[in-house]
Amino acid sequence: MTPKVGIVGYRGYSGAELVRLLERHPSVQPVLLDHRSEDGSRPPIRHSTPPLRLPCGPEAVTNEGLAIVFLATPPEVSIDLAPAMLGAGARVVDLSGAFRLRTPEAYLAWYKEVHTQPALLAEAVYGLPESCRDGIPGARLLSNPGCYPTAANLAIAPLVQAGVVDRASGIVCDAKSGASGAGRKPSLKTAFCEVTENFSAYSILRHRHVPEVLMVSQLEEREFSFTAHLLPVHRGILETIYFRAIGVERPEDLLAIYEKRYAAEPFIRLYEPGHVPDLRAVAHTNFCDIGVTFDPRSGRAVVVSAIDNLVKGAAGQAIQNMNLMLGFPETESLL
Amino acid sequence: MTPKVGIVGYRGYSGAELVRLLERHPSVQPVLLDHRSEDGSRPPIRHSTPPLRLPCGPEAVTNEGLAIVFLATPPEVSIDLAPAMLGAGARVVDLSGAFRLRTPEAYLAWYKEVHTQPALLAEAVYGLPESCRDGIPGARLLSNPGCYPTAANLAIAPLVQAGVVDRASGIVCDAKSGASGAGRKPSLKTAFCEVTENFSAYSILRHRHVPEVLMVSQLEEREFSFTAHLLPVHRGILETIYFRAIGVERPEDLLAIYEKRYAAEPFIRLYEPGHVPDLRAVAHTNFCDIGVTFDPRSGRAVVVSAIDNLVKGAAGQAIQNMNLMLGFPETESLL
Amino acid sequence: MTPKVGIVGYRGYSGAELVRLLERHPSVQPVLLDHRSEDGSRPPIRHSTPPLRLPCGPEAVTNEGLAIVFLATPPEVSIDLAPAMLGAGARVVDLSGAFRLRTPEAYLAWYKEVHTQPALLAEAVYGLPESCRDGIPGARLLSNPGCYPTAANLAIAPLVQAGVVDRASGIVCDAKSGASGAGRKPSLKTAFCEVTENFSAYSILRHRHVPEVLMVSQLEEREFSFTAHLLPVHRGILETIYFRAIGVERPEDLLAIYEKRYAAEPFIRLYEPGHVPDLRAVAHTNFCDIGVTFDPRSGRAVVVSAIDNLVKGAAGQAIQNMNLMLGFPETESLL
Amino acid sequence: MTPKVGIVGYRGYSGAELVRLLERHPSVQPVLLDHRSEDGSRPPIRHSTPPLRLPCGPEAVTNEGLAIVFLATPPEVSIDLAPAMLGAGARVVDLSGAFRLRTPEAYLAWYKEVHTQPALLAEAVYGLPESCRDGIPGARLLSNPGCYPTAANLAIAPLVQAGVVDRASGIVCDAKSGASGAGRKPSLKTAFCEVTENFSAYSILRHRHVPEVLMVSQLEEREFSFTAHLLPVHRGILETIYFRAIGVERPEDLLAIYEKRYAAEPFIRLYEPGHVPDLRAVAHTNFCDIGVTFDPRSGRAVVVSAIDNLVKGAAGQAIQNMNLMLGFPETESLL
Repeated sequence: MTPKVGIVGYRGYSGAELVRLLERHPSVQPVLLDHRSEDGSRPPIRHSTPPLRLPCGPEAVTNEGLAIVFLATPPEVSIDLAPAMLGAGARVVDLSGAFRLRTPEAYLAWYKEVHTQPALLAEAVYGLPESCRDGIPGARLLSNPGCYPTAANLAIAPLVQAGVVDRASGIVCDAKSGASGAGRKPSLKTAFCEVTENFSAYSILRHRHVPEVLMVSQLEEREFSFTAHLLPVHRGILETIYFRAIGVERPEDLLAIYEKRYAAEPFIRLYEPGHVPDLRAVAHTNFCDIGVTFDPRSGRAVVVSAIDNLVKGAAGQAIQNMNLMLGFPETESLL
Repeated sequence: MTPKVGIVGYRGYSGAELVRLLERHPSVQPVLLDHRSEDGSRPPIRHSTPPLRLPCGPEAVTNEGLAIVFLATPPEVSIDLAPAMLGAGARVVDLSGAFRLRTPEAYLAWYKEVHTQPALLAEAVYGLPESCRDGIPGARLLSNPGCYPTAANLAIAPLVQAGVVDRASGIVCDAKSGASGAGRKPSLKTAFCEVTENFSAYSILRHRHVPEVLMVSQLEEREFSFTAHLLPVHRGILETIYFRAIGVERPEDLLAIYEKRYAAEPFIRLYEPGHVPDLRAVAHTNFCDIGVTFDPRSGRAVVVSAIDNLVKGAAGQAIQNMNLMLGFPETESLL
Repeated sequence: MTPKVGIVGYRGYSGAELVRLLERHPSVQPVLLDHRSEDGSRPPIRHSTPPLRLPCGPEAVTNEGLAIVFLATPPEVSIDLAPAMLGAGARVVDLSGAFRLRTPEAYLAWYKEVHTQPALLAEAVYGLPESCRDGIPGARLLSNPGCYPTAANLAIAPLVQAGVVDRASGIVCDAKSGASGAGRKPSLKTAFCEVTENFSAYSILRHRHVPEVLMVSQLEEREFSFTAHLLPVHRGILETIYFRAIGVERPEDLLAIYEKRYAAEPFIRLYEPGHVPDLRAVAHTNFCDIGVTFDPRSGRAVVVSAIDNLVKGAAGQAIQNMNLMLGFPETESLL
Repeated sequence: MTPKVGIVGYRGYSGAELVRLLERHPSVQPVLLDHRSEDGSRPPIRHSTPPLRLPCGPEAVTNEGLAIVFLATPPEVSIDLAPAMLGAGARVVDLSGAFRLRTPEAYLAWYKEVHTQPALLAEAVYGLPESCRDGIPGARLLSNPGCYPTAANLAIAPLVQAGVVDRASGIVCDAKSGASGAGRKPSLKTAFCEVTENFSAYSILRHRHVPEVLMVSQLEEREFSFTAHLLPVHRGILETIYFRAIGVERPEDLLAIYEKRYAAEPFIRLYEPGHVPDLRAVAHTNFCDIGVTFDPRSGRAVVVSAIDNLVKGAAGQAIQNMNLMLGFPETESLL
């Protein structure tokens, strides 16, 4: 029998993308879980049959036998819902920041809230398959990575581990994201007239996603300068990463590090030297595209990393994790 | 001494445009009136000197001797504020729909609210200078026209009055507006991700602005089909108007009607036959641009009318009216 | 053995969409045919395997045994290539306007060129499956409909045939399209800075696509007023259609006509009365969505019809036709 | 008598902005100089009176007594036209890169062309008033700075000169520009469908504008990493600049350096600590807005600098220079 999976927050941008992808998945059946009455219904189409919809709660898990519940909700809601869903026997894939950091102290420092579920925080498995696939299949509570850190870590971690980054002079990550990264809740900051023909920097040096990069790429905060920017586009993240390379002579040397690390990875694409991805290349895909430019005279290196924030940065990666958790082919419904 | 004028709702899109234009006006001094604490401040710039800001109320009018108060507020707020401002001795230019219709019955029918100031509704002067300039200089309460009706009436009224429109077969006005027309209050409908790469029709056949066109162009509702659409642009309105022409042989005949009517008008621009304006032509200007296409074989005529909804459709026209009310040159600060 | 199909013009917007959809089709194998060296390659990605690429010519058809050749080329190129491809034994699906009209006279009148292949023009089958599916399976030369006429005819033809349209007072079709409809060849008209924050009408009353609507919906030119507009979006067409209805009492009566006609159609979606589609609803799909508004007092009706111009308006419909021609399920790779 | 000034390249984006601003200037009269027949006329408006238009050549300078000729042309055209215009007695303000570098060797290295006017290259005065106002009033050939370097140098030069930048660890300038920076000539790269919903990096580490920053801010190439990006907006440049600060304790210390340097500058605006400008803040203005973020624990500093690339980055700065050259108030027609 096809396992059922629940989605909470299915009207948000990540949640809707999750439903769209799950509806094409041959091996699971999505069930919408209503956490609170939300605005934003689409106009009614005749004779269409949307997925089953139920109130969100332990009963839905028990009655429908939900194998997994996806939480596409704000961190405080995820902290609230996760224990109940786990308690009812479902495994949980959380797309929020609630369970990404390792300690309550880190959570307090970056999210400015006391974490009320420290045991779950300790238990949660961080689901960036290309970096740490081992713990994912057995995870009971899986924490889906942030969008910015996904693009950053996939580009930075292999280089740091290979020892080619001059950490003393610092790594700069100038990150740009489409407006869907801010969620679907109406706000002045993401109103059309404020975003169109505009571009702005925010959370300079203190974005909540910074500690995920420090954690995965094994960097100190003082070594890593991160600025988020809001692009006038719907979806997509592009990060331009600057550092001094050590022991590198040609761009091919940097690419070789990625090639070795990502040889078997279906969702990482590398560009020929001197070429870099744009947002268009990854839109509506689960790929992370990486390109490298290098100046051998000075050692200056620039890496460009691009993902679709709603796919590899959220819903697609969540399904990639689900595939690993339920034993399906990792790429199912994602290529 | 330079007369002072007050602006309520100065953080909204029309209000902010009003302040911007008034700051360049050599003969008035703008004063910001705080009606309620609004979100949406701009980042603080050092050593800059914004206009004087006061709580909104009769005291501001009396103490500062405000000659005019502009209400860039929702209709229900305008209905609330207008009596107090008038009572304190100011003249009022209202940019909302509160005082545009002629009767409480019409207001109830189209705005779905009982009008609580019927005497003011009766007194208000409708300020479309190119159509009815006479009453404007002496107005105590001036009602600034809607954005859609401004573009529609300037194109339609002269032709109806010249008797060249076959009213029996109907006039179609297909209207498209930028998102600033919906105001600055955050809503899902005007969120960036909902508007970009999208386009939608709304208020089909029953937009609140319809009765203003019927009133000024002297049409029956059954003769006039109007649909509003939301464009993924910040500002601008373009209306494509279709009708059958009677007694017309060439596009020049239609243009001649406009030329005669608008010979002395500084803000109407006509295009050579077969050419029509686009939004770009009128952006950031107080012009209404009009172009005509005509098929002599069948009598089918298409008129395209374009304005900037925030200027000729709101703040610019309000200043044009103020100029007439205070005896300044009509084009002051608008060319 | 999986049949091979060729694509000429695969770098254009319709051609690239065709390749993208064909690569997911389980029953055919796409082959790229190079007609002329075109600019616009994407940055090179390592270890990727693009489809087979050959010079465009009869040899490619013979050597590879191409079952079908898609021409995503300008009309003059299609007129040039079609005879050679047919002569080499392939069937042809042409996405241009070359073979859409019925007579050389009509072609001369609307395309301003003498048609040099009148016999093929007479032979070509017009491929709008929902309107005339019968001839498609056996077609040797299939002419894929224009994007504007697809949205227009699917909305208009059933109503005209049902006799509910007051043709004497005329039908207005106000059509808006994204910029990809103009093709990928660089031009000032479709440059980013000319299109963004702009909106413009073009080809008023004399667009090349008009005769396709007259042909399929059985209208006279004087009865049908059509204006094309350029939207600042990548993809999508939305048409707002106005007419007076005869013998209709409620919007449901109009919807009932569509329901009867389209009961078995997989790509037509109808909206509940008073609701209409927006561009977003059909983006990246092969659906044509239709919604109706009706004013019973005056008989005024407004129908909104929306498609993705690159899918149902071009590549998707071409594959729908290919599926019918090769005996595959009509929806293969399109849902 | 009002001096006349000529504009070559008046249909390009910078040229058109120049004409628009000059038409409002009370002390000069613009004359359009036709260098070659260009496409891209606007639709004809009745009874409008555009500026005088003449063929471009020495005769225009002599006959009309042009005080200044603006060259809003590509570098190779400027190199061609400048000697003739100077020879006929006009002073020249060149908006291209033709005369910005100091030596033919530098020009060859960055523009990949042999410079055919080395004497003029040596004579040209670089016109960034806030950095080096002295030579401007007497300049015969003035070279208007590039758009990217204007935003970069105004932010970087004061800090380098104050000795607070740790040059050894390098300065990163991540620059983003609207599409008008690429000019009006149609190309695939700036086509609407390629730019909308997209974002891309280009000329990584080797943009032609880099040497202007090295020259003005007195940096070595190995100390300065610059990447240009194409934003899906019409106009505006925002640059995010990263460095390690030396001898700085608080953001106020960095702002104090700017305040001292720019105390008398009318076109530099500084933001309160922790606040930074967005594109919207400077659109359609001649301002360069600067904001600072600083982390005292690590010394990491981030400066955001924003201009309108067509105004302070091109036409506005050209008029600022013209005002200095002709003895008008520096801000005339620019506030």
